[in-house]
Order: sequence, then structure tokens, then C-alpha cells
Amino acid sequence: MANIPKGTRDFLPFEMVRRSYIFDTIRNVFIHHGYLPIETPAIELTETLTGKYGDEGDKLIFRILNSGDYLKKLPPNFELNEQAHKEMLPFISEKALRYDLTVPFARFVSKHRNEINFPFKRYQIQPVWRADNPQKGRYREFYQCDVDVIGSNSLLNELDLMIMVRAVFAQLNLPVCLKYNNRKILSAIAEKLLIENLFTEFTIALDKIEKVGKEKVLGELQHRGFTAQQLEQLNPVFNLSGSTKEKLEWLETFLSESEIGKVGIAEAKELNALFQKYNDSNCELVFDLTLARGLNYYTGSIFEVKSSIGNFNSSICGGGRYDDLTGIFGMPNVSGVGISFGADRIYDVLLENNLFPNQLNSSVKALIINFGTEEIAHALDLLNVLYDHNISCELYPDDTKIKKQIDYAMKKNIPYVIIAGKEEIKSGTYNLKDIVSGIQQTYSLNELINTLK
Amino acid sequence: MANIPKGTRDFLPFEMVRRSYIFDTIRNVFIHHGYLPIETPAIELTETLTGKYGDEGDKLIFRILNSGDYLKKLPPNFELNEQAHKEMLPFISEKALRYDLTVPFARFVSKHRNEINFPFKRYQIQPVWRADNPQKGRYREFYQCDVDVIGSNSLLNELDLMIMVRAVFAQLNLPVCLKYNNRKILSAIAEKLLIENLFTEFTIALDKIEKVGKEKVLGELQHRGFTAQQLEQLNPVFNLSGSTKEKLEWLETFLSESEIGKVGIAEAKELNALFQKYNDSNCELVFDLTLARGLNYYTGSIFEVKSSIGNFNSSICGGGRYDDLTGIFGMPNVSGVGISFGADRIYDVLLENNLFPNQLNSSVKALIINFGTEEIAHALDLLNVLYDHNISCELYPDDTKIKKQIDYAMKKNIPYVIIAGKEEIKSGTYNLKDIVSGIQQTYSLNELINTLK
Repeated sequence: MANIPKGTRDFLPFEMVRRSYIFDTIRNVFIHHGYLPIETPAIELTETLTGKYGDEGDKLIFRILNSGDYLKKLPPNFELNEQAHKEMLPFISEKALRYDLTVPFARFVSKHRNEINFPFKRYQIQPVWRADNPQKGRYREFYQCDVDVIGSNSLLNELDLMIMVRAVFAQLNLPVCLKYNNRKILSAIAEKLLIENLFTEFTIALDKIEKVGKEKVLGELQHRGFTAQQLEQLNPVFNLSGSTKEKLEWLETFLSESEIGKVGIAEAKELNALFQKYNDSNCELVFDLTLARGLNYYTGSIFEVKSSIGNFNSSICGGGRYDDLTGIFGMPNVSGVGISFGADRIYDVLLENNLFPNQLNSSVKALIINFGTEEIAHALDLLNVLYDHNISCELYPDDTKIKKQIDYAMKKNIPYVIIAGKEEIKSGTYNLKDIVSGIQQTYSLNELINTLK
Repeated sequence: MANIPKGTRDFLPFEMVRRSYIFDTIRNVFIHHGYLPIETPAIELTETLTGKYGDEGDKLIFRILNSGDYLKKLPPNFELNEQAHKEMLPFISEKALRYDLTVPFARFVSKHRNEINFPFKRYQIQPVWRADNPQKGRYREFYQCDVDVIGSNSLLNELDLMIMVRAVFAQLNLPVCLKYNNRKILSAIAEKLLIENLFTEFTIALDKIEKVGKEKVLGELQHRGFTAQQLEQLNPVFNLSGSTKEKLEWLETFLSESEIGKVGIAEAKELNALFQKYNDSNCELVFDLTLARGLNYYTGSIFEVKSSIGNFNSSICGGGRYDDLTGIFGMPNVSGVGISFGADRIYDVLLENNLFPNQLNSSVKALIINFGTEEIAHALDLLNVLYDHNISCELYPDDTKIKKQIDYAMKKNIPYVIIAGKEEIKSGTYNLKDIVSGIQQTYSLNELINTLK
């Protein structure tokens, strides 16, 4: 009777306070590095979203039914056959819930290009929706915290994002592994193995290696049309090991005849060099050739972050460079790069590893005890004075047992209760009780104010 | 190509900063008064939402199409006749976007009753969606900032909400009129005029008086089945004028035989008395018998706030007491009261009346000029040092003309640029340029840090 859709969640106050801790940490790093906030609507035109996330992604987009008589645009004599749900869709639904923040951002940049100061550094913290099968760490409604620079090719932007990744997780006390790769290198490999026509399948398969293992991925690739020879050639790619330097050196030989390969390797090398002074056990940079990022729009550097501790295996942050995402919205040749922090997964990781600070709290300073009708005017006067002194507080609304009122304060982590009954009113004093220690002290009004300040 | 659905909006950074100013002001008042944050999903089960907002409201709920083959649950031989869009709906859509925050809150309280500390004071700041016809001040996606107390009958809760209304608008420098009424009084009037069966029509008509005038409302009521005698009896109700005290005294006579009327009048009188010390020209309390609030779930005090200045006539805040909203979710006899601040309308009012502070800004302290490959290591070292000293700053990512870089800083309201080219590097100095005054000063690294701190 009071259920919610699967994959969605309510957040209680104690969870909200923890979530704010994560959002505030991320937001402050973004602001500190000069990124500006924007927001886009949750609802986008369907045409804005479809075709950007691959066929699988398109299926996961939540569609919104047109209002009123949504069937009125159906062609006459429309038949409810087996394909009807596909054919009917464009007639009955024109809007959808956003699937990520990157595509709406590209749409935003194209729409507002004349109001934007380029290179445009923006951040955006909003929920997204995916009709995915819910499981651990995967929700149907979840927040993304995106940060992007658009209108600049410089690798310094990649570096800036990497420094922010390091700063966020350092502040959250979570050691992480920052994996990176370059889609230009993957393109060059596909070129060399003559599998350019299977590039999407190749990248999707690569991304799965860590999860399902090499054997299964090879099986899947064979199924998708890779020849035995191609699979054999992929072996060294799948098995590449050693330090970042060693891996990149091997690739230099392997891809020595590819122009795009050389550019990708040079970029990967430069990022590795630029990040050296930040690279430590709290944020370990690792070049990972099997990192591919499923999304088609990436064209250069790609990133993924995983926790170095605990059992949570999914990525908690990821992104990359896209050279022409605004092109589909009528603004070609603008390169951008960005990453997205998955706040909900970060929450799960911090919880698993017991990394939330103990003192997270959002309570007021004091609860004023309600003694009933006769004393209420006095209590309201006090409330007023405390608010005037900018002291957060509340008056218990009901005239009920004092024990119950103190219990309320304890459950809410309110540190003090103020007792001003008949006797205190007579003597012009206030009794302040420390909830944790139980110690009571009697104060004048001024003393009370100074103690609470 | 880069359009968004009508009634929705993108927010640019300069708008986001202004919106944050409003949200932060409201949120801080909520926290200051002891309200705790919660969040609920944007997507609710349809059955949670329908039947709570009246027939008109139900039509404005955005429905989400089931995923995959959404037609598979249709009964066999379903016919696409004129009523099909109504009959088909429950088979193809089980979820909807929330219409307000009050109903999801009632659902939340029922679902989490064993995890909640009653009386439960919560706030919730999230967007809602309505398929309304967009017009000035009316959007299809907009934010509500709701604050409610549930589990307490005390009028002190109403008072607390009223004090918060006053505090929010005082901090936003907007003088407002706080109108209030009591649904018990309206019920008593309906009882006396024998129009209880037309109560909903009566309240909807009352709400329209200010907008369309008395004549039109009388015409509409006649059309809806009111007799000439009933309309004549309504005349004094519609024409009631004078001070709050005079109005309530007239009602005491008019409703002298009604028990529920007496209770409503007593509540209205007590609120008026309790609020007296807060009542001033910045927040003028007015008892308005024609205030009805369209929503069916209100049962006691009701509120509405309008700007006292400018031409924006719609309410910017409203709410009331509901005695049994959680009952429909299986938790009967729990009284609540709450109000909702319409952040988007408040934005429009502040903008119209030029009330946004000038210095709202979210820029970093300084931009480091990019002099190109040779100087970049030096610039990155500086960036690192400034971040270590918690100074917000950014390095221009591209090696381009200095004028263009300074122009970028100006547009972003960054107050300083740091110039460290070949000469400065040689002499170990940093040139700090104040963007507004144009004045440049040469500093050592320590001096630079201290100046920026």
C-alpha cells in the first residue's frame, strides 16, 4: 500500500546527512577548481536521448506517455500485432527521462552556445533514470555528479579531472585505483586486426573481461564474428601486464605503423608523466588496456575509478574525452572531456568500509520543554530570543510527559534540553540539561544564550 | 535540434547561483527550526498518486510507460476505440512522476513509521512534475521546498511554520502577505447552506474569486447546481471585509450553531493571537475567508503567501493541516501540517523586483595564465601549491593569447589573474593582476599565497 517502484529508494534523515557529506565534498572540489553549476530538465525530448547509448542503452530509457488522449496521433486502422509496441511508441510518447548527464550537457552547450564562456567548465549534480535490472549498487533512479570541460583539446583538462578524482577520494578517506586508457589505442588495435566493423562489439567485450574472465569474452567475440586468427592476435592485448611504462612500450612496438595509435600512446604517456606527483597509494594511477567504456561517444582518454578496499567491485567514477558529442546537436568540432562520480555507489562503498564520520548530524542546539498552557507564553518568548541570537532550537509542540520530550531530543541527537517550568519562571532562570552527560546547570537568560552560542 | 520539452528549463550558471541563494535561505531556516531532510523517488507507483488531487489533478500526472513490450499485458482482442486511451492506461503504465511532495511524504511516513521519531519534523526540497499548460510562473517541472510536522495536533506547529515563512521572506528582503483560513470554517458554512454534497465545487469556486471576480464565480456555482437562495446566502461570505478580528466575530455569529465552525474559529483566533508579535509590514497576517486551497486533503488551518510588491499575483508559498493523509496508506488518525515554498515562483518575484544581491558569485580566486609548453611545469607547481593552501583557482588549459585568457577570467568574474612567464620564473616572482582595477603587483610565492588567502 505504501510501496515504491523497484530500484528506487526513500532516504531517511540519517541517510540524507551521509549523502550530503558525499555531495558537499564533491561539489566543493568542483567549485574549488573553477567549475560552474548548471541544471537541465529531468524530461528531455526522446530524440535528444535515443541513439546515443547503443541499442542496449536505448531499451533502458524510461518513456513518458503523452498527456490526454495519447492514442489520438495513431495512424488510422493501427493494428495491435506483435510489433505494435515498437511501431506505436513514436505516436504515444515524445518525452523521456534523462539517462545520463553527458548527452543533456551536449544538448545544453549547443542550445546555449552564445551565452557560454568557452572553454566551458561546468558541473551538474542531478538524478538520472535507467530501466535496468536492480541489483547491488545498481538502481533505477540514482544521482550522477558530472564535471566536464568543453571547448578545449588540452590534456591539462584530463589532468585537472584526475587531480579532482584524487582530491575527492582523499577527502572521503577512500583509497582508490584510477584506471585509464585511450580509445585511440583501441581504435588502432581494431585497425591492425581488421575488426573496425566490429569495434563496438570489441569494446563491449573488453569491458567485460574483469567481470566474466578472458575465456567467456573470447567465446562471445567468436560468436559475434571474430575469426580464430583475430582471437589469437587479441591474446597479447588481453594478457598485457607489467608497469604502465612497460605496457605503453609494448604498444609502441605493436602499433608502430598506426598514426592514431601513436597519438593515443603519446597522450597516455603524457598523462602518466603529468600525474606522477599525485600518484600514490591513496590514488594509484594504472594504465589498463582492457578498460574500454561502453559508450560510443568517447574518442580519446577514458577513465574509471574503483575502490582499493572492500568488496565493492563496480566502478564508482568514470568518464572520458568525446571529440564531437555536440555535433549531433548542430555544433560540430567541439571537443570535451568529463567524468561522473556515482554518488550512490560511493555511498555503498563508504558504508561497507565504515568510512562515514561519526559526528555527521543536522540537529538543532536545544529543545525547549513544553510545560503546557500556563508556561507556553514564556517558552515562546525564549524561542524568539534564541532565534534572534541565531541559535537553532525547537519547542516541543505538545504538552506531554517530560520524559517523552527528552526521549525525542535524544533520538534526534539534540545536545541540550531547556527546562523552564513554574519555578524557573518565578526565579527568572533556565535549567540547561546536557543530554549525553545528564548534567543540569541553572543559568540566567544571558548566560544561557552565551552557553548555547 | 537542441530543444527541450515545453514548460521545462535549462539553468545557466548565473541562474544556478541565484537559485542556490533561494534554496540555501529556505533550507537554513528549516534546519534552524529542527526539521530533518528526507528524499523520495521521482517515480512513484501510479496508485500512490491518483485520487489525491481531484479529477483535474489526476489528468496532470505524467505517466511512465512500462519498459519492454508494454502492450503484453493488454487483454486479448483489446479494441482501439474512442475510450481506448482510458482503458489501456492501467495495462501499459504502472508508474508516474510525483505531482507534489505531500502525498509522497504521507506514503513515506506510513512505510517508515517504525524508523521515525514522532512528532516527525521533515523538510524535502525536490522537483515535481505537472502536465499543466505552461504560462507565466507555471512550469511543467519545478521545485517545491516542503516542510511538515506529522504526529502532533498542536497549533504551535502552525505557528512554527508561520514564523519560518516570516524568516525566509525577511532574509530574502521580500515583504509578503500571509493569508490564512480554516477548512473547518468552510465546512461549517457548507453545512449551514446545505451544500455539503457540493463542498469540493464550493472550495474550488472560492479559490477563484480573487482571480476571476465574484460574478463569474457565482455564475459557475449556479451552473454546478447551487440554488438562487444558496447563492444569496453566500453573498455575505464572499463580501466579508474588515479586520481579522471583525471577520472572526461576524463568523462567530453566522456559525453560532455549528460545532465544527466554533472549533475552526477558535483555531483561527488563537493563531492570530500567537502570531501578533511577528505581524508587521514585512509579513502581514490576514484572515481571508475566500482562501480555500483546492486540494481535498486539507482539514484545518490553510495558508497562502503572496508578494506585497510587484505584479506577480500567484501564491509563492502555501499549505495547511491534513488530519488523515496517511490513512489512505494504512496509517489512520495521524494529523500533520505543512507548507511548501515555490522556489521557481520566488525566483520570478525576486527577479521582477530586482531583489537578488549583486555579489552572488561562485568563481575561483585566481586564474593562472598559460604561457605554453616551456612554462607549464612551473604553472602546474604553482597550481599545486595554491590547492595545498586551500585557495580556489584554475589554470587556463590552452596556450593562447593572454588577452583571450584575461577576457575569460573577466567573463567568469574571477577577481585575479596570476602572470608567471619567463621573466617572473627567472626572478622567482609572481605578477598578480586585479581584473577590476587593472593594478598589477609583483609578489614572492609566500606573499602571493597570503594575498589570495
